[in-house]
Amino acid sequence: MKALILAENDFEDLELFYPYYRLKEEGIEVKVASSQESLKGKRGYLLTPDVKYEDVAPEEFDILVIPGGKSPERVRLNEKAVEITKHFFEKNKPVAIICHGVQVLISAGVVKGRKIACWYGVKDDLIAAGGEFVDGVAVDGNLVSARHPGDLAEWMKKFLELVK
Amino acid sequence: MKALILAENDFEDLELFYPYYRLKEEGIEVKVASSQESLKGKRGYLLTPDVKYEDVAPEEFDILVIPGGKSPERVRLNEKAVEITKHFFEKNKPVAIICHGVQVLISAGVVKGRKIACWYGVKDDLIAAGGEFVDGVAVDGNLVSARHPGDLAEWMKKFLELVK
Repeated sequence: MKALILAENDFEDLELFYPYYRLKEEGIEVKVASSQESLKGKRGYLLTPDVKYEDVAPEEFDILVIPGGKSPERVRLNEKAVEITKHFFEKNKPVAIICHGVQVLISAGVVKGRKIACWYGVKDDLIAAGGEFVDGVAVDGNLVSARHPGDLAEWMKKFLELVK
Repeated sequence: MKALILAENDFEDLELFYPYYRLKEEGIEVKVASSQESLKGKRGYLLTPDVKYEDVAPEEFDILVIPGGKSPERVRLNEKAVEITKHFFEKNKPVAIICHGVQVLISAGVVKGRKIACWYGVKDDLIAAGGEFVDGVAVDGNLVSARHPGDLAEWMKKFLELVK
């Protein structure tokens, strides 16, 4: 099984590294895609992405993860990254987002009618785009979403139940 | 089941929060003990400890976790924290340490003859105290040890196998 993480600079460090190591713990191969050669989280953790968005073949991946922080505002500016996101929803593959990750989903046009958790500061954008805000960890079809690092345990528990 | 984490300021953020959320994911209650009222990790994450060392009843806990960073050099200065650590080895309860966490074990006098992984910079202290350095994730009786954040997935996978 293969997981793809979409990330740009100033990602929320725990929101990237918790699922990164957690999925590896399950024996899942994890690749990070980015527009950058190297990345630095909000808290200063460094990361070398495995692949550029344009070189990602989304059909090779089973799982998509979009961490929060300032990263999603940058991910959504890349057309290929948005196309990759759409692929996972079209194929109904498991997607995990947290915090500002919802911004990429709004750009991909996949939030309408869905129950989604996200950071409070972007809740109104979710609602304006037709989504329904959930103040907790939300499971809606292929999507498991959460608000902030305090949700990490429940978020990954529910996501792995979906994946299995 | 209850887990205790020993922590002081400048803990390695991922090495504390990964097991913190990971154990919660398993339904394990997690408490952080410290000499401080509030803590800040090396990377700036904040944490409010649940209990002072002197108020910990170690017999109430099933699991001990000692994250790395600059924290263990401070944990080992507290006599009660060292006594708590000894309790887990005397009772053969599961203990997980990573990185500089080994410094607390050296002070507790429990490394002699044990196979232990730790951060390279304190490897010689482990060896001088009679331990055997392992350059990976090490399982030795009740103790699962690791070197750095890159070991998080394997560390927690092996530790949870021991706990279960």
